[in-house]
Amino acid sequence: MVSQKYKEMLSAKSVIREMSAWAVKRGAEIGYENVFDYSLGNPSVPVPQEFTDKMIELLQTRSGMELHGYSQSQGIVSVREKFADYLNRTFGMNYTAEHIFMTTGAAGAIAHAVRAVTQPGDEVITFAPYFPEYNHYVNQTGAVLKVVPADTKSFQINFDELEKLLNPKTMALLINTPNNPSGIVYSTETIKKLAALLEEKQKEYGHDIFLISDEPYRDIVYAGVDAPYVSKLYDNSLSCYSYAKSLSIPGERLGYIAANPKCTDSELISVMCSQISRGIGHNCPPSIIQIAVSEVLGVTADLSVYEKNMNILYDELVKLGFECVKPGGTFYIFPKALEEDSVAFCQKALKYDLVLVSGDSFGCPGYFRMAYCIETEKVERSLAALRRFVEKEYNIKKL
Amino acid sequence: MVSQKYKEMLSAKSVIREMSAWAVKRGAEIGYENVFDYSLGNPSVPVPQEFTDKMIELLQTRSGMELHGYSQSQGIVSVREKFADYLNRTFGMNYTAEHIFMTTGAAGAIAHAVRAVTQPGDEVITFAPYFPEYNHYVNQTGAVLKVVPADTKSFQINFDELEKLLNPKTMALLINTPNNPSGIVYSTETIKKLAALLEEKQKEYGHDIFLISDEPYRDIVYAGVDAPYVSKLYDNSLSCYSYAKSLSIPGERLGYIAANPKCTDSELISVMCSQISRGIGHNCPPSIIQIAVSEVLGVTADLSVYEKNMNILYDELVKLGFECVKPGGTFYIFPKALEEDSVAFCQKALKYDLVLVSGDSFGCPGYFRMAYCIETEKVERSLAALRRFVEKEYNIKKL
Repeated sequence: MVSQKYKEMLSAKSVIREMSAWAVKRGAEIGYENVFDYSLGNPSVPVPQEFTDKMIELLQTRSGMELHGYSQSQGIVSVREKFADYLNRTFGMNYTAEHIFMTTGAAGAIAHAVRAVTQPGDEVITFAPYFPEYNHYVNQTGAVLKVVPADTKSFQINFDELEKLLNPKTMALLINTPNNPSGIVYSTETIKKLAALLEEKQKEYGHDIFLISDEPYRDIVYAGVDAPYVSKLYDNSLSCYSYAKSLSIPGERLGYIAANPKCTDSELISVMCSQISRGIGHNCPPSIIQIAVSEVLGVTADLSVYEKNMNILYDELVKLGFECVKPGGTFYIFPKALEEDSVAFCQKALKYDLVLVSGDSFGCPGYFRMAYCIETEKVERSLAALRRFVEKEYNIKKL
Repeated sequence: MVSQKYKEMLSAKSVIREMSAWAVKRGAEIGYENVFDYSLGNPSVPVPQEFTDKMIELLQTRSGMELHGYSQSQGIVSVREKFADYLNRTFGMNYTAEHIFMTTGAAGAIAHAVRAVTQPGDEVITFAPYFPEYNHYVNQTGAVLKVVPADTKSFQINFDELEKLLNPKTMALLINTPNNPSGIVYSTETIKKLAALLEEKQKEYGHDIFLISDEPYRDIVYAGVDAPYVSKLYDNSLSCYSYAKSLSIPGERLGYIAANPKCTDSELISVMCSQISRGIGHNCPPSIIQIAVSEVLGVTADLSVYEKNMNILYDELVKLGFECVKPGGTFYIFPKALEEDSVAFCQKALKYDLVLVSGDSFGCPGYFRMAYCIETEKVERSLAALRRFVEKEYNIKKL
């Protein structure tokens, strides 16, 4: 019989997707260029030419068997070696191929990581504001997601609230830095404090607590921002990466888990993930994409546009009197709404063709997210709409 | 804590992989060309030039956003439309895009299909001999795989044994035709008889029983063989396909589920699969591969070599006195071993550099599988080794 569980999930609507659908519909009426669509985190900067050239070169010079043959279920060995080397050079780590597990994007990485270090009934803690898909990545494994309320002053970690949630059933923490939706990067101080607390709790509870670090925005960090490599500061860490944002290839679904060589059973995590794959039919990402990306390591799309967009928006928001923590990376900004009900706030913005997403979706009501991975020219044009919106709806004039 | 479940799975070894590893090791000693490696179902015929040319053309002419952007989680709509049209033209069906869900290979398709139509505790029935990964695809969802013993006379369905296993907890049947490892294609008569039985049981139990049809070898059917399209003959059917074998691109992991438009909730299966994806991080196969394959629909690698290889092997096996049902498709043959213990039989064959896989791995002891997706020239050279093997070990001379 058709599964009731998944059937019922169909009625739960994604606010982000609803907002995006509104933008597309409105675009059909007035031209999409006139809709200030800040709803989706879809990278807008072009795929680097090096990647396209490499793909064509591979197709012209390598055999089909070499490019399109079955890869090991952990991923192609030579590819994993290159990724390990790259991480070692960049972050001073000691990964080998056996620590790397290739995944279909960061989603696949997190879903595997959670299964690898929890059992049904265990608790996984994350921190608001957080990417709403975490609910599915965690709860569908049988583990239970617990959410630490946001520290809205800085969007760093709210340690008092975290301590209240930690208990012997806590088997993993799931962090995301640079953060979607706040744009904030956890500082070295934050990660060190977190690591010290987890070390202490591991001793107290007598078991490992893994830190699953979701890092798709690792390469989008703004000038002068302190952005530590999480696995450098805590042994039981699993770094989850995706090339979606840094290479602008989200549709190709390439990511990996890098198990810290110092973590418990570090040499087993990747092969265990292969076992997990057998049950969900995932079986490693596309071979040609694995190979092409491994041959352009270090290359990124031109990510500078995101910092430029952020500065334009941040300056305007502050001038208009918004409470807003300045992002340190990503392509998101997460200001406080001008009324308590941020859903109502975002609904009113639609009248000005401004498509914003309420913080409710991210476990942080009263705030809203703008995904500024759009053309700079459009960001600039949106400022007038933003001014009209706050002026007319909230009687606020630009200072 | 690291999951004991997946850690313990590491000690269970795959016989197929062990045999393949033996072949590689032996190849390092005597040259791989001298090892008659019949262990792995890795397609050997070249990727069609049309596919490679299409990939290059796409990379040279389309924008990165178009090729590598996020696709809908069900798969790219225009791609799903093309796949539906192709199936309609080929098999006289009435699919639309909404019935298609793009997956990472047939593995992803089966794992999703099982989750879509069962709940934990439900039973799924399959038929020996069967692909051993079915145990994982089914049991890791929480459903329970039950296996109907083989009808070794014909490798069609053993209906008496099937009736013994059917009960109100049976929610799905998982069939594989053309079959790995037997090479047999279920006849129209077999499928019609199965459909009639399931219709009857659906009424008796008062619930749907889905037929999950695993069809990666659908395009490898030999001349004159009756090979019905399963979904044409039973309404509650989910057709699971993969391009691994027909295009020789197993590493690219492209497949789909096609939900029969006449099945219960046919318009919901694909969107339900999207919900399932959220929990396992699968999120649709690579966008460029989806697009490229959709533009070369109907093209296949030169699959004729498999029939040629089969005929050479089958004739020799029969001459040597093997009991063997002639394959109707795939690139497998599944003769009866010359002693009861087919594991011992396959071990002895290694002395002659013949790498065979015992039927135990496929739930059918006493038989062995040969995957003849290797060069015809090698198949021919292997015959002398096969003759020496049966002559020396079993005192059998060629008739």
